[in-house]
Amino acid sequence: MVVPFAAIFGQAEDCDRILMSGLQVLLVAGTHGNEINGPWLLDQWSQTPELINTHGVGVVPVIGNPEALALGQRYLDCDLNRSFRLDLLRSPSILDREVVRAKQLLSFFGPEGSTPCQIVIDLHSTTAAMGSTLVVYGRRPADLALAALIQARLGLPIYLHDGDADQQGFLVERWPCGLVIEIGPVPQGLLKACIIEQTRLAVQACLKVLSSVSSGLATYPDQFVVHSHLGSLDLPRNTLGHPAACVHPYLQGRDWQPLQVGAPLFLRPDGEVFRFEGRDSPIPVFINEAAYVEKQIAMSLTYREVCPLPEQWQGALQQLVDC
Amino acid sequence: MVVPFAAIFGQAEDCDRILMSGLQVLLVAGTHGNEINGPWLLDQWSQTPELINTHGVGVVPVIGNPEALALGQRYLDCDLNRSFRLDLLRSPSILDREVVRAKQLLSFFGPEGSTPCQIVIDLHSTTAAMGSTLVVYGRRPADLALAALIQARLGLPIYLHDGDADQQGFLVERWPCGLVIEIGPVPQGLLKACIIEQTRLAVQACLKVLSSVSSGLATYPDQFVVHSHLGSLDLPRNTLGHPAACVHPYLQGRDWQPLQVGAPLFLRPDGEVFRFEGRDSPIPVFINEAAYVEKQIAMSLTYREVCPLPEQWQGALQQLVDC
Repeated sequence: MVVPFAAIFGQAEDCDRILMSGLQVLLVAGTHGNEINGPWLLDQWSQTPELINTHGVGVVPVIGNPEALALGQRYLDCDLNRSFRLDLLRSPSILDREVVRAKQLLSFFGPEGSTPCQIVIDLHSTTAAMGSTLVVYGRRPADLALAALIQARLGLPIYLHDGDADQQGFLVERWPCGLVIEIGPVPQGLLKACIIEQTRLAVQACLKVLSSVSSGLATYPDQFVVHSHLGSLDLPRNTLGHPAACVHPYLQGRDWQPLQVGAPLFLRPDGEVFRFEGRDSPIPVFINEAAYVEKQIAMSLTYREVCPLPEQWQGALQQLVDC
Repeated sequence: MVVPFAAIFGQAEDCDRILMSGLQVLLVAGTHGNEINGPWLLDQWSQTPELINTHGVGVVPVIGNPEALALGQRYLDCDLNRSFRLDLLRSPSILDREVVRAKQLLSFFGPEGSTPCQIVIDLHSTTAAMGSTLVVYGRRPADLALAALIQARLGLPIYLHDGDADQQGFLVERWPCGLVIEIGPVPQGLLKACIIEQTRLAVQACLKVLSSVSSGLATYPDQFVVHSHLGSLDLPRNTLGHPAACVHPYLQGRDWQPLQVGAPLFLRPDGEVFRFEGRDSPIPVFINEAAYVEKQIAMSLTYREVCPLPEQWQGALQQLVDC
């Protein structure tokens, strides 16, 4: 089932119309206002609910940052997807519109909200050639069990963003279970049919596996593969702090391909090449993501882990679904 | 020769430092603040002048919209590259920052400005798969002679934007001769080495042919090819004016490839396909350019013309170069 389209704007008066029981999956798009393929999909689903209403799972679609979406900007005051830090949420004096919106989303759709959702799926896009990726924050059992099920169904890679003190306050962390679906490459502010379709397939896989958990028919894999966050690389910079090189064309688009010693990383205008001199063949992701320029991240590095899937993790997901 | 880097910010106090004689080519980048590859190139050239100072042509580099560039936005109040309409420039009451900037650029670098430039090259990028394109506005003899020379040297297609009442006030129109170099595909706000390199090659070809004109050694082709603007297509829209379909994945990236009857144009979420039903196989350009969403342009259509290059057109360019 799907709630009325009006609810995606998250206005208080709309919430009265939402009356559901059992598992509710919050489906967020437009957390960043210049990532418009997810919102397009939500809009279409809301007009034609049977497109999404096929798995017997309660879905609450919502636009994360409708004001930024209307302006085609990533955000107004600060990144909404870094605004869910507990210190920000607890501070009455912070009036950044995204922090206010974060509180609002939680008060409506948080686990203790007026329309409580137990699981959140947050739809994003990237200019990096990531393909379709599941992003999980930290090592919460229910998150990893859900990601493992989706990976078993659709083969998507899992980027495990863990232990990065500079990057905190992600939306999905404030729900008992949640993950990001990240699709690219697509320019900001651009509708692209193939990105919409990849997003649709990934969301449907999520709902399908949640439906299978709900009906007790989920087949969990014994193990799954994650790419765990090691750290991020910035562009080389000059003494003024401006970029002194750009991502080397060899590397552009090579997300998920291990970096070998000597691989070209960055290219200076005078032709000088900065090469990778580390070891252990880390695997780069988010290579040249436009939104990370301001965060001084040219790419992130990961390592591949094969993880067993303990039964108690399955139980953690089951418990949420059976709420 | 190249002027000091400070001049690219176009501050009045910097202009005192500029003292040149003979032909001056104004090289503008960052007319749109979210097209950052041209500005990057200007920055590098300004730090290493010999990169550009190889053709004996006076070059005045300038950032078109430094405030928008600093914010990573296309513009602040209105599109700078539609702000050079005579009615806007002559109105003392219009205070949009881009109109003010247009007047400022003209007062500094216009043909009657304090540092007069006779020819302008305006560097742009696009999310469409246009490759490297020369864009010429109207059929001014000197513009077309210059474009024909560059085409003969580098083979670039020429998009002749002519007679579109909805799109007026382009920067280059206010100089006696000028053209746009448009390179894509690249997302907005993203540095991409291959785009920088394509931009560099196109600018160097411009300067090289201007140098050959200056030294009387230019070899003009007898004819050249232009793609003349026919009109633009918008996305299908619903009764609320919202897009009801997106560009069909078949068409995405097929800029410059003639549209045949029945070719898929747009795709509705329910799978319905809008097909091209016109005749004469028009040639689409700017397919799915992110910045044109707000202009309600999903693509523009052109037709291919083979044009003779009359001697008097060559004379028009020669006269400007010999100023």
